[in-house]
Amino acid sequence: MIDMKRNGFWYGGECYPEQWDEDTFKRDLRWMREANMNIATIGVFCWAIVQKDESTYDFSFLDRALEILEHEGFYVCLATPTAAPPLWMVRKYPEILSVDVNGHMRKPGGRANFCPNSEKYREFSVRIAEKLAERYRDYRPLVLWHVNNEYSNYCYCETCERKFREWLKNKYASLDELNKKWYSDFWSQRIYDWEEISLPTTRNFLLFRKDRLQSINPAIYQDYRRFMNESLLECFELEYQALKKYTPNVPVTTNLMATFKPLDYFLWAKKMDVISWDSYPDYGEDHVRVSLRCALMRGVARGKPVVLMEQSPSQAIWKWYNHQKSASALKLHTFQTIAHGAEAALYFQIRQSKGGCERFHGAVITHANTNGTRVFEAVKCIGEDLKKLEDRVLNTRVDAQVAVLFDWESWWALEDSPGPNIDFSYLQEVEKYYRALLRMGVGVDVIGVEEDFSKYKAIFAPTLFMVSDEIGRDIRSYVESGGIFVATTMSGVVDENNLAWLGGYLASMNDVFGVRVEEFDAFPLSEERTVLFLGKKYLVKLIEGLVRVEKAFVMGTYSDGLYANEPCITFNQYGEGFAYYVAACASQELCNDFVRYIVERHGIETSFSGPVDGVEVVRRRSKDSRMYLFVMNFDSKRKQVLLKEGKWRDLMSGRTFFDSLVLEPHGVLILEKVDI
Amino acid sequence: MIDMKRNGFWYGGECYPEQWDEDTFKRDLRWMREANMNIATIGVFCWAIVQKDESTYDFSFLDRALEILEHEGFYVCLATPTAAPPLWMVRKYPEILSVDVNGHMRKPGGRANFCPNSEKYREFSVRIAEKLAERYRDYRPLVLWHVNNEYSNYCYCETCERKFREWLKNKYASLDELNKKWYSDFWSQRIYDWEEISLPTTRNFLLFRKDRLQSINPAIYQDYRRFMNESLLECFELEYQALKKYTPNVPVTTNLMATFKPLDYFLWAKKMDVISWDSYPDYGEDHVRVSLRCALMRGVARGKPVVLMEQSPSQAIWKWYNHQKSASALKLHTFQTIAHGAEAALYFQIRQSKGGCERFHGAVITHANTNGTRVFEAVKCIGEDLKKLEDRVLNTRVDAQVAVLFDWESWWALEDSPGPNIDFSYLQEVEKYYRALLRMGVGVDVIGVEEDFSKYKAIFAPTLFMVSDEIGRDIRSYVESGGIFVATTMSGVVDENNLAWLGGYLASMNDVFGVRVEEFDAFPLSEERTVLFLGKKYLVKLIEGLVRVEKAFVMGTYSDGLYANEPCITFNQYGEGFAYYVAACASQELCNDFVRYIVERHGIETSFSGPVDGVEVVRRRSKDSRMYLFVMNFDSKRKQVLLKEGKWRDLMSGRTFFDSLVLEPHGVLILEKVDI
Amino acid sequence: MIDMKRNGFWYGGECYPEQWDEDTFKRDLRWMREANMNIATIGVFCWAIVQKDESTYDFSFLDRALEILEHEGFYVCLATPTAAPPLWMVRKYPEILSVDVNGHMRKPGGRANFCPNSEKYREFSVRIAEKLAERYRDYRPLVLWHVNNEYSNYCYCETCERKFREWLKNKYASLDELNKKWYSDFWSQRIYDWEEISLPTTRNFLLFRKDRLQSINPAIYQDYRRFMNESLLECFELEYQALKKYTPNVPVTTNLMATFKPLDYFLWAKKMDVISWDSYPDYGEDHVRVSLRCALMRGVARGKPVVLMEQSPSQAIWKWYNHQKSASALKLHTFQTIAHGAEAALYFQIRQSKGGCERFHGAVITHANTNGTRVFEAVKCIGEDLKKLEDRVLNTRVDAQVAVLFDWESWWALEDSPGPNIDFSYLQEVEKYYRALLRMGVGVDVIGVEEDFSKYKAIFAPTLFMVSDEIGRDIRSYVESGGIFVATTMSGVVDENNLAWLGGYLASMNDVFGVRVEEFDAFPLSEERTVLFLGKKYLVKLIEGLVRVEKAFVMGTYSDGLYANEPCITFNQYGEGFAYYVAACASQELCNDFVRYIVERHGIETSFSGPVDGVEVVRRRSKDSRMYLFVMNFDSKRKQVLLKEGKWRDLMSGRTFFDSLVLEPHGVLILEKVDI
Repeated sequence: MIDMKRNGFWYGGECYPEQWDEDTFKRDLRWMREANMNIATIGVFCWAIVQKDESTYDFSFLDRALEILEHEGFYVCLATPTAAPPLWMVRKYPEILSVDVNGHMRKPGGRANFCPNSEKYREFSVRIAEKLAERYRDYRPLVLWHVNNEYSNYCYCETCERKFREWLKNKYASLDELNKKWYSDFWSQRIYDWEEISLPTTRNFLLFRKDRLQSINPAIYQDYRRFMNESLLECFELEYQALKKYTPNVPVTTNLMATFKPLDYFLWAKKMDVISWDSYPDYGEDHVRVSLRCALMRGVARGKPVVLMEQSPSQAIWKWYNHQKSASALKLHTFQTIAHGAEAALYFQIRQSKGGCERFHGAVITHANTNGTRVFEAVKCIGEDLKKLEDRVLNTRVDAQVAVLFDWESWWALEDSPGPNIDFSYLQEVEKYYRALLRMGVGVDVIGVEEDFSKYKAIFAPTLFMVSDEIGRDIRSYVESGGIFVATTMSGVVDENNLAWLGGYLASMNDVFGVRVEEFDAFPLSEERTVLFLGKKYLVKLIEGLVRVEKAFVMGTYSDGLYANEPCITFNQYGEGFAYYVAACASQELCNDFVRYIVERHGIETSFSGPVDGVEVVRRRSKDSRMYLFVMNFDSKRKQVLLKEGKWRDLMSGRTFFDSLVLEPHGVLILEKVDI
Repeated sequence: MIDMKRNGFWYGGECYPEQWDEDTFKRDLRWMREANMNIATIGVFCWAIVQKDESTYDFSFLDRALEILEHEGFYVCLATPTAAPPLWMVRKYPEILSVDVNGHMRKPGGRANFCPNSEKYREFSVRIAEKLAERYRDYRPLVLWHVNNEYSNYCYCETCERKFREWLKNKYASLDELNKKWYSDFWSQRIYDWEEISLPTTRNFLLFRKDRLQSINPAIYQDYRRFMNESLLECFELEYQALKKYTPNVPVTTNLMATFKPLDYFLWAKKMDVISWDSYPDYGEDHVRVSLRCALMRGVARGKPVVLMEQSPSQAIWKWYNHQKSASALKLHTFQTIAHGAEAALYFQIRQSKGGCERFHGAVITHANTNGTRVFEAVKCIGEDLKKLEDRVLNTRVDAQVAVLFDWESWWALEDSPGPNIDFSYLQEVEKYYRALLRMGVGVDVIGVEEDFSKYKAIFAPTLFMVSDEIGRDIRSYVESGGIFVATTMSGVVDENNLAWLGGYLASMNDVFGVRVEEFDAFPLSEERTVLFLGKKYLVKLIEGLVRVEKAFVMGTYSDGLYANEPCITFNQYGEGFAYYVAACASQELCNDFVRYIVERHGIETSFSGPVDGVEVVRRRSKDSRMYLFVMNFDSKRKQVLLKEGKWRDLMSGRTFFDSLVLEPHGVLILEKVDI
Repeated sequence: MIDMKRNGFWYGGECYPEQWDEDTFKRDLRWMREANMNIATIGVFCWAIVQKDESTYDFSFLDRALEILEHEGFYVCLATPTAAPPLWMVRKYPEILSVDVNGHMRKPGGRANFCPNSEKYREFSVRIAEKLAERYRDYRPLVLWHVNNEYSNYCYCETCERKFREWLKNKYASLDELNKKWYSDFWSQRIYDWEEISLPTTRNFLLFRKDRLQSINPAIYQDYRRFMNESLLECFELEYQALKKYTPNVPVTTNLMATFKPLDYFLWAKKMDVISWDSYPDYGEDHVRVSLRCALMRGVARGKPVVLMEQSPSQAIWKWYNHQKSASALKLHTFQTIAHGAEAALYFQIRQSKGGCERFHGAVITHANTNGTRVFEAVKCIGEDLKKLEDRVLNTRVDAQVAVLFDWESWWALEDSPGPNIDFSYLQEVEKYYRALLRMGVGVDVIGVEEDFSKYKAIFAPTLFMVSDEIGRDIRSYVESGGIFVATTMSGVVDENNLAWLGGYLASMNDVFGVRVEEFDAFPLSEERTVLFLGKKYLVKLIEGLVRVEKAFVMGTYSDGLYANEPCITFNQYGEGFAYYVAACASQELCNDFVRYIVERHGIETSFSGPVDGVEVVRRRSKDSRMYLFVMNFDSKRKQVLLKEGKWRDLMSGRTFFDSLVLEPHGVLILEKVDI
């Protein structure tokens, strides 16, 4: 359970009392109660209100808001307001403003506009965090600190450039080493003085190619990303420490954004007390993609409970088409995150603002200004559902035999510089294999490369582009000891310095897989090519690898293209384990049948008799061996699911099921295993 | 009639004698005469010629050109040359150059490149206007002043920023008031010092979203647009005053551009003696869209005659595909503007330039350099036609029982910041209802919100997004006194500060319409949804409103989507009048049938038995009750039109028609009612 | 034969020993030998290695590499490294960095980032060239100097602006003349002081329109291009002179890029000893387009042998989809360049780099790091083929009766400023007629306007937009003396100052063609229009010209559109010759049949009985009248070719053919005429 004070789900949302009069705020809190809510986040953007100049702090607004919240019986998630520095501050210290990738400094206005390496910004943000912690250290309802908001902003200013050079000095120690790792002799880029190093921007290294910003120097951009990731994380840590000084026992979080490319959240998780995140699925967005985000956040939290810090109860504002959410969609989305470990569900936002950028963003209480709306009704129902669950599913964990590797470093390295195919996407590769597992009913953890592999019977590593010596060794010993490891196209291509491995890709693991990969052919989506796998023809897309088999068994071969009749899918027994390789970018259909083959061949446990599409089943287990199934139908058709043995009772309706169940369109069941 | 000296149509175009030798100019004038022309515009871009440095003016070129024009018997529309400041000027005073929305200052070169708030620019432009007026005060052929050219340029420089702050001080008086109206507490944007205010640019508030530039701060961008509109208008007014000092009796205009988003022409019209405008319909552009532009310019002129200052006799240059115009297309376009009140028709340009940006722009006299061209022939025919009309249709006015509201403030507020649907377009909504009226043969005025509503039997207000208290009161009392008012989706959403109305959209007029609008669902064009209206199913697009009926009668309901079976189209009797509401973005077909229903139910007068598509009929009436019909067939097929009663005679051919007539493809008839 | 030391083909590629240890380099050279290679390019990007600060040169790396190369028996093409200035240099002298068209200065990093007018850059580049020449003047294997790399970079900095003004002073002498030629009175752009002249950038004159950057001032941009072309050429010349000082007998080249718009290579050719170029055909790219590039490079070399300086043995890196090349594609591409006169074929690159921008660019030796790869095998086969040819086809020349005019000035002038149709493309017009000739088996030279026309029986001048008095005279006298001249749509529109000709396009040659062209109609690709030519209907596209016939015979008329029944294709006998005009942008089909008509009517010599599509045949002749046919099938189907008379023997296989032959898919034959 989340390290917070209450034994039950947290249900609530973000309040902005600064936008409203006190009566409105109080009435909103009563309506929140009516919707079974118990927690409110406040303070996210209050900096300009509580600090009006460099030395004047005035917390009266917060004092009063917190007093009312306490009086109304709410628990409080208190935010540091550092995501949007006040206008007076950026006017006085313009260096706080970030410079964009084109080299243009921002002008005052907006949010997430600060330079993460600005000393002034850091000084001010630490000070406000400290002030808040000191002032509210004894505030009873305080259960969680919410630092900043959706950290995201890379910066390209001179301060960052200077700090980047220091970061590089620390990392490489000598210019010789740097030149070697950056491969500087290519295009005459040798560096003789640390001051010669520039940040990568569109004025030197970066180019927009199709929908991607890519670097003509892969090494420097990878290091820049690492540096920026750490720079932003340092901002978080500095506030974290300031808060802990006064409130050592209040957990601290910041709201993450799941498959958000700029930040490697595995690194962030090490510094956070609790993982919280914001979920804004698109209307009709493929549920598997959403599930991957839920599972990734669970993986980042290493299985521990998480907080759903933000979701919209209805529509968003920043999309081109901001669909409303039906009550059933809201329920599905909410329970999907709970299935993956959320023990708190908060909305952005409680009350729709009258002005500002997000005046059309959905809220629990809309411009209609009543508790009689469609949206309010939907939100209230979720609150009632949560009550029925809380003494059961809290404290349970997903148990999974299979893991999918997720690696920000590979994501960056693969996509951030020109490669064979501009359309080839890391996220799509991961999604494809994750989907193939999900539809079979396999429990899947999404893990980082530092996770202990031995916990899993099988590991899928889609396009693990970057493989260091160390990761290579881990994979080798995992397979050696009996693991099933699946590598796919464009894996093991570069080392941790983003330099190509020589001698056939898959690097130092060629013997593990029994193959060497000689080259990759690339082609557009419009070009149809096929492989033959276990007697059936399948489409492959975008990338094909030319495989030289040294020892492996060939399971699939190309039927056409430049590599017609060459191997495409191979299998090798190594030590006690098994190493599979898929050399091409598989179509979903090929992925599905390939994964099904592995699941069936190796007897991987499933929670239903698959495959079933459109349905997600998540199995959770308590320490005392109670077992739960979250069964969610994302389809607009009825779906039948054949459960693996036993009798199950739905916690919401009380109905029981033997073996098989039928889900209504968009239906959700939360089943508890009943002993027979 | 336009307040100009001659009792007849003005026909002519823009001459640039500065580009040619005198003989060529003289021969051109003779050819213009041959084409029945009587007026020439000159001086539009002559600044660098008549003023070669800060203190040296040399008008000899203009003197000579005007002398020739007078000698050849032409009336003259004389332009101030302030749309393109000379290179010496912008080099000496670079602050004259404008800064673009990305924060980049322009370099010297081109036109419409000045900062409207530059004191130097204003000083120079007033001085040249004054010099011209002083010098040519007694020039007999001078009938019209043409100030600048197509005002359009917003600026984002520091001068503008400073002036914007002053403008805001004047408007809001206190920062408290400003903060409240700008909703500054959203995202911590509270302003403690006027100097903290920045212009909205892409470096702080503005983002390109799909094909729109949108602001993350709706209030500031709305005020910026108002400020820029006024800044440019001030430039016009300053020149206006300078001209009036010496030539108080010569009317002054500047050429507008109809549905041009950056400028609220209703405001401009208050300061102009005559409305003139430029019309550049696309090849094959829907005639209703063009008609709306004509009608808007007529509305801006409050029904008074206008000048068609520019049209191309053949092709444009700035389009991707610059089609030539056939003789019949030229005739249709010309008579459409005349039908809507133009009493002058001028071409840009008389002679095609050899160089410069527009060397391929069409002209009456082309590079072929003869009066024997296809284009010249077409232009000459129009001149002959105009002669046949002038003693009849001049001094007549369109009479209309119905008005369509057009509101720049709503246009800006709706589209300039993130809303539920990026594709939802103000102009399309207006066009749709305008089209539905036109095809029924209804006479329609296009009016601003300040117009006297009581003149109209019915008013259509498509997406009147911004409704102030005052406009709300006007609508209420209009309906109360018997008016028919039609509001459509996303109307009455914000007040004049661009802040959302609370309590259900349609604001303070909920009782008038008998409904409250709770929320809007948004979806892409590709998503098909339907409503049932009077027993028939229709498509709706992009936006659906959720309507809570308090008193209204439901005429249409959603057939599918999130709001299936909820009301979509309602009708309410209020006081003596009727208030209709269409909650969704209707397909044209729904619009058509809905409007037809209203026309028929309320017995709105029409000029033919509709509906007819592809044909436009405009009815004009003289003070002594003569009646004219401009009947124009924009279709490539023959069209039959059933006139409402009576006998009509075509002014061009002399043919008479009873009740019914058949129009040839692209045919034009100008009918006079014949007493029987 | 190229003026190099060896009597045989050069075969090899670019080596970058600076990226590898010595053993690897040596092994690579041995593998190159195995692939029948004899030449290596080195030094292209070694500047930062050999010069580490302003005064320190250290050539030890080059010394050693050259020593090894000599030891291994390779000839050497030595590059000056000036395409990528070292980081220390641009840091110390930031003015070396170029400013882009948006006015932004580059930051350090990357290549081709220098300002061509920077004195510092020129000083440094001359000095390094001189040092290299001095040091290696006696290096025996040195056979070719390779200056810089793919010159391409326009610059928009203040230095360039200043130099541009000087260039203009030289050209126009007086401001009066400049103002006249620049047509400055249009839009008030008159210049009173040379300092008022700005470079054209996106901040004044340039706009992105669809996929083109266009100038609102055609004259200034044309002059800017001429100036930049000369500026870059000066950089080349300065290095050329430095090299010649010490090695007067070693030929000097720089690698061109064929149909590369920014540089007028006809001008460059005058300053180069040997033409060399880089060929990167797209996968599946139309072979005729590639052939045009080959033929253009041959034309630029005025028929003399050229060097294929770069091609990829497999994939590229900078495309969106970097297809691998099959062995047959590599063979086709290589022999196509040889057919057009290449006597050297080099690869970029010999060894694939581990890092840097191009780590995924193909190489003879790939990351797989063996000589056992698919690619290595293909490269080796080409080497073997070349050996079989070299004593035969070297020293032969293409002989052609027909020429296609290629004119950079027309290309710029047509596309660089707004014209009637944004999609109308110079290159496509040239390609279309070139293709029509090729498929008939006509030998075609691609020549510049300064070439001696009298060598050709017929000249096709697709869209010769710019025609000066002088070129007009040349065309006139060519036709007068019996030449066949074909002009097409939008020819003869402007003079050399980019000012429109008056009096009907085709300028002063109206009597030669017997027509005047009055105007051009423009329409998008989606609009289908047709002409009737010799009894058959054909599509035309984008542009139609309105032709006034004065004397010509009408061969084709428009069937529809604005010009229905007006002439479109005409023919005029003038003096001893014939002048054809095609007023519309023809479809390929019309082009084909029109060209076929001319070929047949005028008995133009062909090398087979055409037409045949998908096959290219190039005929070469030696001084002693041996005759060769390169017969290449780019199709994936078998093709039959009916040779014109005689017996032919394939140099590769030894097979002989009478009259007819059948080519395998992607097959290549190199036939020698056998006397019977």
